[in-house]
Amino acid sequence: MVVAYVGTRYAGWQVQPGTPTIQGVLEERASRMLCGPVRLAGAGRTDAGVHARGQVANFLTESRIPPAGLVRGLNALLPEDIVVMRADEVEESFHARADARGKEYGYRIVSAEVVSPFEAPFVAAVRGRLDAAAMRAAARHFLGTHDFTSFCPVASPIENKVRTLRVSEVEQEDDGRVTFRVIGDGFLRHMVRTLAGTLIWVGRGRLDAAAIPGIVSGRDRRLAGPVAPASGLILEQVFYGEQA
Amino acid sequence: MVVAYVGTRYAGWQVQPGTPTIQGVLEERASRMLCGPVRLAGAGRTDAGVHARGQVANFLTESRIPPAGLVRGLNALLPEDIVVMRADEVEESFHARADARGKEYGYRIVSAEVVSPFEAPFVAAVRGRLDAAAMRAAARHFLGTHDFTSFCPVASPIENKVRTLRVSEVEQEDDGRVTFRVIGDGFLRHMVRTLAGTLIWVGRGRLDAAAIPGIVSGRDRRLAGPVAPASGLILEQVFYGEQA
Repeated sequence: MVVAYVGTRYAGWQVQPGTPTIQGVLEERASRMLCGPVRLAGAGRTDAGVHARGQVANFLTESRIPPAGLVRGLNALLPEDIVVMRADEVEESFHARADARGKEYGYRIVSAEVVSPFEAPFVAAVRGRLDAAAMRAAARHFLGTHDFTSFCPVASPIENKVRTLRVSEVEQEDDGRVTFRVIGDGFLRHMVRTLAGTLIWVGRGRLDAAAIPGIVSGRDRRLAGPVAPASGLILEQVFYGEQA
Repeated sequence: MVVAYVGTRYAGWQVQPGTPTIQGVLEERASRMLCGPVRLAGAGRTDAGVHARGQVANFLTESRIPPAGLVRGLNALLPEDIVVMRADEVEESFHARADARGKEYGYRIVSAEVVSPFEAPFVAAVRGRLDAAAMRAAARHFLGTHDFTSFCPVASPIENKVRTLRVSEVEQEDDGRVTFRVIGDGFLRHMVRTLAGTLIWVGRGRLDAAAIPGIVSGRDRRLAGPVAPASGLILEQVFYGEQA
């Protein structure tokens, strides 16, 4: 299934007892529809408040309901902020996370005195002007294969922090609106938001774009900027097989 | 004040005891901020679930807080789905409704199997293909000065149902997405949504664009299409003085 959601009301993707999560709501509704327990494997564990346009999740079922019927039935049961965009039958060996070859994230930043209620849930709002050209130059330094230790929590249990980004670009949409877009083979916890937080420092003149290579090679969390707000982040798509 | 809001959670603009309304929330927060009762005059009484990008409302105050401070202060107190976009001091005689020379509304229709959670709150979703060219031809027949009795509730207490539309157009954004845009000197209750509901009939082939003049001149509510859903409607802007 390709799933889109507005993450604002949820404590993230992953099931947690006592709080609403995307996975939790999806599993509960799918179990109700299919009259038996459904366990989902999701491609990316988005954090609390993070959105998705193309999260991917799979599950095993013996149901004979065709994928299109599943989409219609599930969407009828789901709240308005979680939508199954489509579903396909896959090999039984398929695993949304293990088989993912890459992911694309977008991070949207708006610099404005006042942010409209239509965009506020989907952006990070910052004060003052953003130097998009400096941000673009800085984002280029994230490209390629690096140890991203500087951009993930110190307490991270993951040993190998080497990841490869094949797209890392900043697009200026219009005056005061900037989108940071990354495609990589995998991402550490908080990585995109910490890259975005560092770019916001650059955009506001607090950090020079030329300082980025040193921050990356320093492998020290204290060198990078803060974790930018969850609202600005969206999981755009997950790549499989030859798509990557 | 120019006010933007996502109307989904509200029973419309106008104060109603016991239900949350935009005017009610704004008056309550403004009264709290200015330490005294604030009564708002709003330009348009948007219905339950209808959105606004440019609602206009004024109030009388003896406060010495400058408009920019009022915007910041009020936005700090308001929920995320209501935002004061700007404020200006006006003549004491100004009245947002009485002085309005015209209004612009947008109505967004999406024809898709599945509508993403990002656009669902802001559109009317319809099944099947929409013939945008036929809708465009139909919308042209609404232009000019007409008695719009066919497009407002039978029980309407308003005597004079003659209104003038100087823009009435259908724009195809991309495949399956259509926006109906109207600018007029004034609008009857449910009028834009009934025009939109009639256009949806045309778009789905249930009605011919050439039938519109007869529906208008017939002055009979039974001739027109249904009231389209509130979610698709947005009050874009209100015109004053020479803007009109």
